[in-house]
Amino acid sequence: MNLDKRNLLYRGKAKDVYATSHPHQVLVKFRDDITAGDGKKKEIMGLKGYYNSLISAKLFQILEDAGIKTQYLGLPEPGYILSLKLDMIPLEVITRNIAAGSLLRRFPFQEGQTFKPPIIQMDFKNDEYHDPMLNDDIILALELATREDLEIIRETTLKINQVLKDFLEERGLLFPDFKIEYGRDQDGNIVLGDEISPDTCRFWDSETCDILDKDLFRKGESGVIEAYQKVANIILDEKDKKKWNLDF
Amino acid sequence: MNLDKRNLLYRGKAKDVYATSHPHQVLVKFRDDITAGDGKKKEIMGLKGYYNSLISAKLFQILEDAGIKTQYLGLPEPGYILSLKLDMIPLEVITRNIAAGSLLRRFPFQEGQTFKPPIIQMDFKNDEYHDPMLNDDIILALELATREDLEIIRETTLKINQVLKDFLEERGLLFPDFKIEYGRDQDGNIVLGDEISPDTCRFWDSETCDILDKDLFRKGESGVIEAYQKVANIILDEKDKKKWNLDF
Repeated sequence: MNLDKRNLLYRGKAKDVYATSHPHQVLVKFRDDITAGDGKKKEIMGLKGYYNSLISAKLFQILEDAGIKTQYLGLPEPGYILSLKLDMIPLEVITRNIAAGSLLRRFPFQEGQTFKPPIIQMDFKNDEYHDPMLNDDIILALELATREDLEIIRETTLKINQVLKDFLEERGLLFPDFKIEYGRDQDGNIVLGDEISPDTCRFWDSETCDILDKDLFRKGESGVIEAYQKVANIILDEKDKKKWNLDF
Repeated sequence: MNLDKRNLLYRGKAKDVYATSHPHQVLVKFRDDITAGDGKKKEIMGLKGYYNSLISAKLFQILEDAGIKTQYLGLPEPGYILSLKLDMIPLEVITRNIAAGSLLRRFPFQEGQTFKPPIIQMDFKNDEYHDPMLNDDIILALELATREDLEIIRETTLKINQVLKDFLEERGLLFPDFKIEYGRDQDGNIVLGDEISPDTCRFWDSETCDILDKDLFRKGESGVIEAYQKVANIILDEKDKKKWNLDF
């Protein structure tokens, strides 16, 4: 797809957002940049954007089918997602089903400990302040969201967790944790935005416990793209694969 | 007061807790040790324990008078407080009325910005993990408190803030923030414990904005003990001063 740089609205760490001819729609380009450690570790990994767009489109479609309002409008071709334009809320909403990652460095949980109910954690998406963890009072004082917004976000997030966890577990994947972001549409409704992919989730093979996400890159291990491809292969159905001529 | 070291139950950074002949009462010795920066900066400052015990006893008495359950039983002599024995909850409950201190380093608030309602923040009192900030879900998952406990703690803390803020403002002191701790008595009731002093609060002169608390020590400024003495002088009444022959 040839995109006019003049239409670039926003360049994130791994995605570019372009204006379209429709005032309420944007085109999101999934780039091959992969970053970790507060942006300190960076690489370009061929096909990462391709697989992430396929995975994210599929998971957003599943959430739409379950009645969750999302930004997703369609996948014109792998690598690009057509989305509702949102005014993003600068919160990284993290849901944890199994203790892993930074949680273990910050608090005395046991590795692999499960959380029922899950833990929801909200970090401030702010590079200058290094994405600090928030609490509800601080979110309100920073005017990032209202108390009603927080209730909607929390309830929607728990529902998203349940829908995705069920979908993934049926397919042999554990879902230890994931990060999502919300925005507001032109009517002020809170809508799920951003992406859901191995860049923003942990996926573990439920039999072998193999890591199938960005943790491989964080740890400097090989097979990153193979893992992303494996996730795509597991979650896409035959119809999806046929549509995009995917031969895994 | 001569205390038998064999009765020492707990040695904190600035206080020692001794068993007494009464099974549900402890004697708390306020030491002159002063620490900052996660314990990295340490000094001994003569009379600090003396003033802190007078200030803490007075503020706990005011809270008792306002109907708040506290650990305070009496001040047998300056430097020592007789207290109800509590099973302490490892939460540092911080209330913020005005933006100051670590909050400004961690989040984009304006220095001196006021919070109405105040911000309540709960940190995990845990040296190994450097007292990380918590949220409710993490507190529940760590089993530090139940949801009902958190409601009681939050409600009581807001009441304590209101009572102390009113008391201090009438006497020309601003109350930007403070840290308190709670414990459980033998019946499982949640009771205010620990201390309320210039070691654990910010106190500012409301006319000059002079700092009258441990921030002077943190910043390496002089006049630390003079500031603590000034707070005692402001909050103690003539009866208190006569009782202890205080001549400020």
